[in-house]
Amino acid sequence: MAAEMAEQPGRLAALLARRSEIASGVRSLVPDKLAGTVLVARGSSDHAATVGRYLLEMATRRPVASASPSIHTLYRADVDFSGYLVVAVSQSGRTPEIAEVLERAKATGARTIAVTNDAASPLAQAADLLIALDVGEEQSVPATKTVTAQLVVFSMIAQALGDLGLDHAFETLPDLVADVLADAEPPEQLAAWLEDASRFATVARGLLYGAAAEAALKIEETTSLFASAFSAADLRHGPIAVASTGIPILAFAHPGPASKDVLELVAELDARGARTRIAGPVAGSDLPWSDRAPETLAPILAVVRGQQLALRLAIRLGRNPDAPAGLTKVTVT
Amino acid sequence: MAAEMAEQPGRLAALLARRSEIASGVRSLVPDKLAGTVLVARGSSDHAATVGRYLLEMATRRPVASASPSIHTLYRADVDFSGYLVVAVSQSGRTPEIAEVLERAKATGARTIAVTNDAASPLAQAADLLIALDVGEEQSVPATKTVTAQLVVFSMIAQALGDLGLDHAFETLPDLVADVLADAEPPEQLAAWLEDASRFATVARGLLYGAAAEAALKIEETTSLFASAFSAADLRHGPIAVASTGIPILAFAHPGPASKDVLELVAELDARGARTRIAGPVAGSDLPWSDRAPETLAPILAVVRGQQLALRLAIRLGRNPDAPAGLTKVTVT
Repeated sequence: MAAEMAEQPGRLAALLARRSEIASGVRSLVPDKLAGTVLVARGSSDHAATVGRYLLEMATRRPVASASPSIHTLYRADVDFSGYLVVAVSQSGRTPEIAEVLERAKATGARTIAVTNDAASPLAQAADLLIALDVGEEQSVPATKTVTAQLVVFSMIAQALGDLGLDHAFETLPDLVADVLADAEPPEQLAAWLEDASRFATVARGLLYGAAAEAALKIEETTSLFASAFSAADLRHGPIAVASTGIPILAFAHPGPASKDVLELVAELDARGARTRIAGPVAGSDLPWSDRAPETLAPILAVVRGQQLALRLAIRLGRNPDAPAGLTKVTVT
Repeated sequence: MAAEMAEQPGRLAALLARRSEIASGVRSLVPDKLAGTVLVARGSSDHAATVGRYLLEMATRRPVASASPSIHTLYRADVDFSGYLVVAVSQSGRTPEIAEVLERAKATGARTIAVTNDAASPLAQAADLLIALDVGEEQSVPATKTVTAQLVVFSMIAQALGDLGLDHAFETLPDLVADVLADAEPPEQLAAWLEDASRFATVARGLLYGAAAEAALKIEETTSLFASAFSAADLRHGPIAVASTGIPILAFAHPGPASKDVLELVAELDARGARTRIAGPVAGSDLPWSDRAPETLAPILAVVRGQQLALRLAIRLGRNPDAPAGLTKVTVT
């Protein structure tokens, strides 16, 4: 896991170097007037898609949905995808339900993109356009370089379909990821803070929510700690009562429209006696990253912070982060 | 909470008695060729919408999305909703972001429906079509009769837009809800099972997933127990390592295409030493309901089972289920 995390600056730079070719492929595939976009993913890939949903809805200016695969694979709903862009995301490209949803969408008129690490996989073969992550084999069960590469792909697709002003930021992104990886002390200290916890929650709003969800999953995978992610809005709808019972909570925030709500929630949680910490380039942060990244790319830096925390906590707890008990790399559902 | 739960058979029967008028309103609002549907909700209403998403995608045969309100309210994305049906769901109709998303969607061409308990609320006023729940004031903080009424409304909207074969089942639904409410012993026994737990998880797949999420939230609200809901598919992507550490897990299943996957997961969890129980009219169930309901309406019965469990557990733990510490009825985000 540590070795694959360390590859990220180089792998992301290589992926970003292909962005003009990827943008051309995307632009020639997608019709001028989209009905909407549907994203198909599970697990960590679905967290990348949660961020991608924001980016694509901002860029295409049409609604974006996250697919519920069972509507198609179990209930066999006869859904008409004409006019839609469908983006299916899977590290292995071998989760059968993901490929099945993409195939059904394509058969009813969707333009389809596969984002995967295996250009020979069923998913890659089925799609109109393959965007290969090309990050090399991922051997650790907890996905790391795959997830940040998927996030980069979503931002490249979005930038190709509607200018989000990311071109300059793409240039500096690999260095910002390298800076986060080189800054090892904050995640070590947060891991010490979590060492005796039996429960853990992350919270964010908007663009960073997918990164907060990925951080919680990474910690669950590597440590078996019971971890949940909340959007700041949903936390106030009920779970805040639980959050006030002493559970450690890590809030993710980046300067931008969503940070005020998250930081107000942290203050409210603190007033209720919760144990909170903050991640991001904001006041009071315990796990910073650069504020030179726009908020649209901040989820990539936040995901790396979550990886570091999961890795350090697993090592402190004497776990093997590469092969957590009872987990396999490809999941069949 | 107990009194409002007991009102449900009568309130749902009254709502169902209006179904021909509601169906006419829906059919005259919705264009023949939908681009898609977007649902807007938070908290318990969003769990009803999670079920509604399945029903509406099956009925309209076009993709359905759950809105991320912050895309509109915080990031001010200029999304074009032309050709879309937008259904906004809120007990009070007074959560500002829900009304704001509906207004923005309407301004760009969406046909809009408000599903709320307050016909004078901003949300009700803003929509093209109001479907009033008319379940009477809900005084208990944990929403109960509102949620089952919202589920009934989603099934009525779906049945109006594409025949799901629900007309006969609507006739018997209030009696099936009454039967569940009269069967008090199984939730009492499950509450005893959970009494010493510090963590809890529910799991389901497909149509019942929203009900499993609502059961987890209801228990969080009334008891401050840390509870999470998983789709069976997502649980296998990482959290299964946590689920095997002795956390009590309640699996929801109803005869139909999704039950096999859930029951196989339960067997797998049992083999890993997890503590599992089953809800639904299937073999080995500890919390049954009638198998005379089609799977499309089973979430309503499952939600009532979750209410009973949350109520009995709160009472066992000496909590006041009507006014949980630190929660308010209307949430502003």
